[in-house]
Amino acid sequence: MNESAFIAALKALADTPAARGLDDDAAIIEIGGEQLVLTHDTLVQGVHVREDEDPADIAWKLVAVNLSDLAAKGAAPVGVLVSHMLGDADEGFVAGLREVLETYATPLLGGDTVRADGRRVWGCTAIGRATHTPVPDRRSARAGDAIFVTGTLGRAMLGMVDRGSGSADDLAYRRPRPLLAEGRALAPHVGAMMDISDGLLLDSWRMAKASDVRFHLDRGAIPVADPERADECMRWGDDYQLLFTASPDADLPVPATRIGTVAEGPARLALDGAILTPEDGLGYRH
Amino acid sequence: MNESAFIAALKALADTPAARGLDDDAAIIEIGGEQLVLTHDTLVQGVHVREDEDPADIAWKLVAVNLSDLAAKGAAPVGVLVSHMLGDADEGFVAGLREVLETYATPLLGGDTVRADGRRVWGCTAIGRATHTPVPDRRSARAGDAIFVTGTLGRAMLGMVDRGSGSADDLAYRRPRPLLAEGRALAPHVGAMMDISDGLLLDSWRMAKASDVRFHLDRGAIPVADPERADECMRWGDDYQLLFTASPDADLPVPATRIGTVAEGPARLALDGAILTPEDGLGYRH
Repeated sequence: MNESAFIAALKALADTPAARGLDDDAAIIEIGGEQLVLTHDTLVQGVHVREDEDPADIAWKLVAVNLSDLAAKGAAPVGVLVSHMLGDADEGFVAGLREVLETYATPLLGGDTVRADGRRVWGCTAIGRATHTPVPDRRSARAGDAIFVTGTLGRAMLGMVDRGSGSADDLAYRRPRPLLAEGRALAPHVGAMMDISDGLLLDSWRMAKASDVRFHLDRGAIPVADPERADECMRWGDDYQLLFTASPDADLPVPATRIGTVAEGPARLALDGAILTPEDGLGYRH
Repeated sequence: MNESAFIAALKALADTPAARGLDDDAAIIEIGGEQLVLTHDTLVQGVHVREDEDPADIAWKLVAVNLSDLAAKGAAPVGVLVSHMLGDADEGFVAGLREVLETYATPLLGGDTVRADGRRVWGCTAIGRATHTPVPDRRSARAGDAIFVTGTLGRAMLGMVDRGSGSADDLAYRRPRPLLAEGRALAPHVGAMMDISDGLLLDSWRMAKASDVRFHLDRGAIPVADPERADECMRWGDDYQLLFTASPDADLPVPATRIGTVAEGPARLALDGAILTPEDGLGYRH
């Protein structure tokens, strides 16, 4: 059973709208008139983080990637639950956790600790309150919209080879910044929105597919950290920038670069007119 | 850094009341005038479930132990997020997940799938709505209260050696029942309440400690599945019965056995008058 089949099987378990969280970045539930956003991400040693990653950086990333999912929903963090597998350098993990929670004013609500040998695994569930309804999702890109991205893509990739230097690229890799303020500011202006965790091209394809539209991306417009490695920058994950659609003449409250246009479906991703599919290696799959 | 030190360090991160979820079974947050209950449990292959456990039983247990934490809070499930490490027999996992979600009318809201070799790890976050306030906790046992337990202890232990037979004991081990209806019915009547996941004695000691009171348990009154193995039945986890305190003359809506009395602190656990401490091996620690 491959991952898609597994997720399809899971989705079949729940025919409620909430189950769309399974292929979206977050689940939305309504509680007492508020829209609550829930996300869960698991990090595995040697898969999502390097074998020799600094535990403080692992803790930062564990929380930050979940907060990034909240950011893409325009949600404000209510808190997180963290699951930690005890092992070496737990002090470092706690220190990194403190930093990320304080930086984003996010309470630690609870969690679980387990003890086991072998590969370590960490989990985080983040809970947020939507600040705007409808809550942005990846299914709402419409023909005629413009496609935008925040920031510059490929910084985390450059940081991978520049680790520990303290450079901006190094920090982009080790200490990704969830764009919570940007997501909240953008939420009232966007059609579809998601964070880019697996590379611009793969996540663009996912948004096009979820919205059943064609994405035309303009390669020359895509902001990359290293123009000589533009192909890699568009495929590398871990940048956690925001990808969104909006009216071409929207007055956006946050700096963003227009990188393309949405056209009528069927769902396709085109880069300078050439159709790309996941088989072309669009990004990071896990 | 041992587990207690780690948890103490985590608690120091968050001085909000919500952080008490770290040594309680669940976190409580208020959203739109409702009390929301959040729990997270992680299961590790070879630690919390046997190496050769049926994946359907793993999925059942993963969700059931979290719903049991909701039960102890008198909460009704809103949904769960499940983290699954892909591997062998994912179909079985999906089948077990379907069974437990349907049985307890609990939507699957989302989650994460990861792929890695080595020891498998599963996570579940359950979200519930409190049906009664104050939400029961483990800190509210008061001198003069009676101590009660639902059901019979040790069934899961007997089921461990009787696996696959389909007997009641086998099912108690493989398919633990979260006592959601019982927890809701009891919530308005209890002082302190928690589910017994790590053995009656250890969890009684935890409740006594959290409430800063002395628990006097009467060995002869404790309902055990096998009187000849009473010591083990009182120490074995996995039964997920409810332990609670209430007025000695409470008119309880659910069958339960009175097993002792709460007295003034300092925090102690006494069995037939003999003081027991965690060093005496009170139950399952992980």
